[in-house]
Amino acid sequence: MSISTTAPTSADIGIFDALESQVRSYSRSWPVVFDRAVGSTLYDEDGRGYLDFFAGAGALNYGHNNPALKEVLIRYLADDRIIHSLDMFTTARRDFLQTFSESILAPRDLDYRVVFPGPGGANAVEAALKLARKVTGRESVINFTNAFHGMTLGALSVTGNSLKRGGAGVPLVHATPMPYDDYFNQDYPDFFYLERLLTDSGSGLNLPAAVIVESVQGEGGINAARAEWLRGLADLCRRHEILLIVDDVQMGCGRTGGFFSFEEAGIVPDMVCLSKSISGSGLPMALTLVRPDLDIWEPGEHNGTFRGIAPAFATATEAIRTYWQDDALERSTILKGARVESRFNAIVSEFGDAGIVSKGRGLARGLQFADGATADAVCHAAFERGLLMETSGPSGEVMKILPALTITDEELDRGLDIIAASVDEALTA
Amino acid sequence: MSISTTAPTSADIGIFDALESQVRSYSRSWPVVFDRAVGSTLYDEDGRGYLDFFAGAGALNYGHNNPALKEVLIRYLADDRIIHSLDMFTTARRDFLQTFSESILAPRDLDYRVVFPGPGGANAVEAALKLARKVTGRESVINFTNAFHGMTLGALSVTGNSLKRGGAGVPLVHATPMPYDDYFNQDYPDFFYLERLLTDSGSGLNLPAAVIVESVQGEGGINAARAEWLRGLADLCRRHEILLIVDDVQMGCGRTGGFFSFEEAGIVPDMVCLSKSISGSGLPMALTLVRPDLDIWEPGEHNGTFRGIAPAFATATEAIRTYWQDDALERSTILKGARVESRFNAIVSEFGDAGIVSKGRGLARGLQFADGATADAVCHAAFERGLLMETSGPSGEVMKILPALTITDEELDRGLDIIAASVDEALTA
Amino acid sequence: MSISTTAPTSADIGIFDALESQVRSYSRSWPVVFDRAVGSTLYDEDGRGYLDFFAGAGALNYGHNNPALKEVLIRYLADDRIIHSLDMFTTARRDFLQTFSESILAPRDLDYRVVFPGPGGANAVEAALKLARKVTGRESVINFTNAFHGMTLGALSVTGNSLKRGGAGVPLVHATPMPYDDYFNQDYPDFFYLERLLTDSGSGLNLPAAVIVESVQGEGGINAARAEWLRGLADLCRRHEILLIVDDVQMGCGRTGGFFSFEEAGIVPDMVCLSKSISGSGLPMALTLVRPDLDIWEPGEHNGTFRGIAPAFATATEAIRTYWQDDALERSTILKGARVESRFNAIVSEFGDAGIVSKGRGLARGLQFADGATADAVCHAAFERGLLMETSGPSGEVMKILPALTITDEELDRGLDIIAASVDEALTA
Amino acid sequence: MSISTTAPTSADIGIFDALESQVRSYSRSWPVVFDRAVGSTLYDEDGRGYLDFFAGAGALNYGHNNPALKEVLIRYLADDRIIHSLDMFTTARRDFLQTFSESILAPRDLDYRVVFPGPGGANAVEAALKLARKVTGRESVINFTNAFHGMTLGALSVTGNSLKRGGAGVPLVHATPMPYDDYFNQDYPDFFYLERLLTDSGSGLNLPAAVIVESVQGEGGINAARAEWLRGLADLCRRHEILLIVDDVQMGCGRTGGFFSFEEAGIVPDMVCLSKSISGSGLPMALTLVRPDLDIWEPGEHNGTFRGIAPAFATATEAIRTYWQDDALERSTILKGARVESRFNAIVSEFGDAGIVSKGRGLARGLQFADGATADAVCHAAFERGLLMETSGPSGEVMKILPALTITDEELDRGLDIIAASVDEALTA
Repeated sequence: MSISTTAPTSADIGIFDALESQVRSYSRSWPVVFDRAVGSTLYDEDGRGYLDFFAGAGALNYGHNNPALKEVLIRYLADDRIIHSLDMFTTARRDFLQTFSESILAPRDLDYRVVFPGPGGANAVEAALKLARKVTGRESVINFTNAFHGMTLGALSVTGNSLKRGGAGVPLVHATPMPYDDYFNQDYPDFFYLERLLTDSGSGLNLPAAVIVESVQGEGGINAARAEWLRGLADLCRRHEILLIVDDVQMGCGRTGGFFSFEEAGIVPDMVCLSKSISGSGLPMALTLVRPDLDIWEPGEHNGTFRGIAPAFATATEAIRTYWQDDALERSTILKGARVESRFNAIVSEFGDAGIVSKGRGLARGLQFADGATADAVCHAAFERGLLMETSGPSGEVMKILPALTITDEELDRGLDIIAASVDEALTA
Repeated sequence: MSISTTAPTSADIGIFDALESQVRSYSRSWPVVFDRAVGSTLYDEDGRGYLDFFAGAGALNYGHNNPALKEVLIRYLADDRIIHSLDMFTTARRDFLQTFSESILAPRDLDYRVVFPGPGGANAVEAALKLARKVTGRESVINFTNAFHGMTLGALSVTGNSLKRGGAGVPLVHATPMPYDDYFNQDYPDFFYLERLLTDSGSGLNLPAAVIVESVQGEGGINAARAEWLRGLADLCRRHEILLIVDDVQMGCGRTGGFFSFEEAGIVPDMVCLSKSISGSGLPMALTLVRPDLDIWEPGEHNGTFRGIAPAFATATEAIRTYWQDDALERSTILKGARVESRFNAIVSEFGDAGIVSKGRGLARGLQFADGATADAVCHAAFERGLLMETSGPSGEVMKILPALTITDEELDRGLDIIAASVDEALTA
Repeated sequence: MSISTTAPTSADIGIFDALESQVRSYSRSWPVVFDRAVGSTLYDEDGRGYLDFFAGAGALNYGHNNPALKEVLIRYLADDRIIHSLDMFTTARRDFLQTFSESILAPRDLDYRVVFPGPGGANAVEAALKLARKVTGRESVINFTNAFHGMTLGALSVTGNSLKRGGAGVPLVHATPMPYDDYFNQDYPDFFYLERLLTDSGSGLNLPAAVIVESVQGEGGINAARAEWLRGLADLCRRHEILLIVDDVQMGCGRTGGFFSFEEAGIVPDMVCLSKSISGSGLPMALTLVRPDLDIWEPGEHNGTFRGIAPAFATATEAIRTYWQDDALERSTILKGARVESRFNAIVSEFGDAGIVSKGRGLARGLQFADGATADAVCHAAFERGLLMETSGPSGEVMKILPALTITDEELDRGLDIIAASVDEALTA
Repeated sequence: MSISTTAPTSADIGIFDALESQVRSYSRSWPVVFDRAVGSTLYDEDGRGYLDFFAGAGALNYGHNNPALKEVLIRYLADDRIIHSLDMFTTARRDFLQTFSESILAPRDLDYRVVFPGPGGANAVEAALKLARKVTGRESVINFTNAFHGMTLGALSVTGNSLKRGGAGVPLVHATPMPYDDYFNQDYPDFFYLERLLTDSGSGLNLPAAVIVESVQGEGGINAARAEWLRGLADLCRRHEILLIVDDVQMGCGRTGGFFSFEEAGIVPDMVCLSKSISGSGLPMALTLVRPDLDIWEPGEHNGTFRGIAPAFATATEAIRTYWQDDALERSTILKGARVESRFNAIVSEFGDAGIVSKGRGLARGLQFADGATADAVCHAAFERGLLMETSGPSGEVMKILPALTITDEELDRGLDIIAASVDEALTA
């Protein structure tokens, strides 16, 4: 494997320019044409390797073309087993439900009904919001500053980013943003405003159906909520009879250590949204988990074409069998996360005056720079050295890494070396 | 291959009852557990075959596990090529764009930019509505009676079905329904009301950003718009500077004969939504095609995790290469459609007093019965005979078939025989 | 009394130009400063008289400074009786309720509870919409093409005029416009579209809380609904359990003959909005009448500062005592209306090629011209001759007259002569 | 004058029970029928006098039937001058504009265009919100906890009270509540949350068109904002290019001392809403004052029937001539307010354990009790002693007084004696 350390040559990208919409974004940062990928390495069409600290924005927690999943997937297809099945009963769906129940829910003492809401995370969020509104008979929802929940109209209405919100073309209503953990550097008590609004009948806040929250805000800038903040939120929701929806689309499936990102806090949400890495293989799949007594839907009241991509069920099942029978992956993720953190802390110290902040939990990690331009420069310098990372945060000021949980220590260190060099280049330029 | 002609034995479905949400629907009609599928036949776990006149609700126009696509797909995966890629440049995406441009757009003289809006049809619709609103600076949209465009909040707001609309839990606004073709049995001129509202500044209709329409309404009851109605609609939109969005999610990819369902009418929509059969293999994929001058998006203004499922691109490319280099499939589909129509007409005649109506275009066909119970009884009787069909229409009164376009004449006839027998059973019971 | 027949001299209007908002409208048509008014004559500050065929847009059905009402009003004030009383019990409120009940409701066999919703018509409409939504638990409302119901956000959402709607600055939602009577020159059956949408569960029309309608659309262009159309509407509402709200703000209080404009049709609305001429004196006052079983409000759930302008109650009571103890006014109004109609018909005949249409009912009458410019020219010519009229209709193409019901035959004829001369001038210019 | 000190006898209120809607509220607290009123005394139909510390909820700042205004009003009517004039030029409107400009705006160095938005405060608010949205092209508005701005749909959407909001029957959208001054007992910096949301492009707050605020929240519980808080708000609005609307409907016209309640803070709002006491006589009238460069309305884009109640203009003009030529009234109001405050402070001290709080500014004063029941008991005891007051605040926990500014010291002391006795009775019962 040869990782590129020089700038890529100009690729044949004319057809993209000619045909693809201006809305494309990642290809602007990485103007090469990728072809193959194994584990934590992507290869462009000229065979140059790129170390992937991005992992499909969290959709590839087990790496690209993970051999265990690949084998199951190819065998599944070779055997002419069902690919597309809407919400029909299939053996693949049954295997998944059984395995998910036995290896994920039962050991964590969780009791949920499983909704297959459609292929992506936005579907999981839209389904959760719908059901929360149906159950409570209320319309409004509390979201948090810098939240990201998806780009369909319902999901977008609880998302913070102003560029993305502006794209809706209609006023986004029914949601009120509240400060996420540490929004004020812990200068004020948690939930002081939300709690007050809820207890004051003259506050002007419509009583919400639900609160939707990410345990760690990925797109929002790798903001990790403290466990006690999450517990406080769960307690507030219970006291005010508001449903708590955890959007674990990006931070679930082991990204922060435990299978669910909220395990560490010891809370039990009323609904959980999963997607991205749930299939394990990168194939689209999403789940909305709901407390059994909330499952009051009529048959077909929510549906969709891609609720039963059975090859995704097959790899999802295999991923659970491979990685979630014991706590080895969880411990490894925490250790690797600590390794990143220590290295990031060293960078923060080294550039003491630059106001860099190390952020994150598990293997969702970030370095916050003074502005978006600096973070961009770091990512660009890293790309030149063969490392893929993206920025996040409201001004793109956070260099964000989501390495595959299966990354080797060697790969991790190599990437961290590149990051250190890239920060150095960007800040001393 | 042995097609079941007896009722299935009780399958092991306890885990579904215990774990899956009450919202599931198809599995209520077909309480068997499917496992394998080839061409137009699905097999349950006991090896019983079922003839598939349903084709993933239009997502499997080339049949289950089509050998050409299967080969490409397995080879793609075996070679460790990229599965998940957001909107990065990939060789698979480039091949698809090239092929789609050369074999689909160019021969039809169509000039569109391609948006990869997310994995499913609702994403394609949400993206189209967003862009239409951004371009025009208007909020409202005209939809049609009995339209179906998806279950996310934006898509749902232009959907007709009251059960599905009710599930939103918030008032669905910004859309005004207009009568679809033949809503009044052609007693009134086309667009008499819409046209009047648009020219009357006191009408109370907000000037719409767009009109969204299906050439044939599948979920709405296999209502096929006449070509002149579609042309009239396109003309009206042009005169009033309203964007015309054709939702070809279910009726595109050859379902009605031509690749696009609107070809027959000779119209050129401003935007086109594709999904379902676009990947060919049943893997999730969706496209929004937009007139080049409308492509005014900022980078990243619309995004999403599953915009680059490269195996789906690979099979989509192969499907175009296999089926859309000449007009063989189009002619075959039209012939098969005529075969169905003639058989349906015979059924209508035979049960002259029952008020059955034969509906549809190409291989989107339906028999409308007096009520939903009768249509249900027909489908149930057919299932007992080993044929899978679903109902559609506002009261489920339309028996709907969407066979794979690759179905053999023998299979088609066998299914039509079962339908004839099932109608007979249901109506003479 | 000397009625001006020459153009007014320039008045001192500098302070208006300097201080009043650009939004002013009537003063643009009539650039004179009015000072006194008696019966059907307004006097400018130079003593020139203007015959008033406009009557405060229907707020002065009993003429300016009607002597009977003036006497009561001055005595009321001289006696230091309460002017402002919110919704406290007052003798004036009691007298009004007693008189309204005995002389208006009882003889017509109407059973309503009276809401004092605030000072103006928009308050009456807002209160009716609120209560209809509370009672039914539904949000949407059916309004009609070219409806006008007021300028506050709720009332505006059911109003048709695009300039006025555009002023809202937010999308106006929750209302769907249906064709008013004769919108299609009776080419189609009444309610064919609304009825169909309501019976089709897939129509995409949210089941409405209420239908709001004017018996004659004043601002919309003096469109008079036929009695059978109103009966059909009432029947449709009853069958679908939709509340029927008649907005009688402009057409009530005898404008069309009977006290309520809907009497002629023999229907009984679920709610009625009254304002404009209800006080008789031109002082602000409004009522929302509601079917007793719909009166499910909590105390204070709707309120406002100007719900108890007691001098308005005093003149309202006196107006009923003076004019509504027998059917003299009703018969007189119908006769005068016929007098206008016959004269208008003569004008229509005389200018046979001009496409003039005579419209209206009772003393709400209009002449529709080919365009707004012609109607404007007629009104301008009439103003030069000392007659005040305004235009209405979506393009201002309807010359609209709402003379005081107390106008003398001499005044009426004089005004009609001016109209005839003005039409002649405008059309032969 | 004999003020009642015993409970009133049962009045003839049967007709109210039979005919008036359940929504009535004040008449529930004061079950007597009022008839006459002079200065600060209301008389019921049996001649019993009640001292009025309520003043039409702030609509009677110059007392009932103020002799100066009464004389002008009767003479105006006796002379057959115009009563109802829409927005035509009238001598009465001109006199008002001239006087308002010379005696109110000019001495305060204020430059506003005057909109006559309709008869009541809600109209003034609706007009301001419309224009703010039109000017900025934005939809959302910032309001404050416990705000009250009116009961029409637009005004209600920026109002806090949950009972009143619930009455809307549709979700109230486009407004986000922020903490009013002292909402957190000054534990946190002013505007810490709003400022942060506005500077964070990922906050999820739609950039607002305007902030709407009351200098003292009357209905919200007599919450008086500090001058520095108002200045901070004006500064924040200027920095973020958000329009500042001061709703001075209840607190304007001298209620807090200066003509405008915001004078003390030295701020200049972009728009000001006036109503209630602007006519002086209790007749309905309202104004929206707008910065000249914001006056971009089309003629007629906002209109309404009761924009020109000329007798109200006449008394409004006379009120300015009588009371606003020097600072006598302002000084008197401040002195009387201090007199009330000192007496209230004594009550707070006397009942030290009861947690009573003295609130307010000028002659808008309140005593906050532990709960609504206590405040109710105080008001009830006062009514038994012949004093009229109401409660306010989210739980009705604030005894609120708005005496006429023209109240005599003797009357004021008499009322304060009754309050002291009533508090004593309520708290020691």
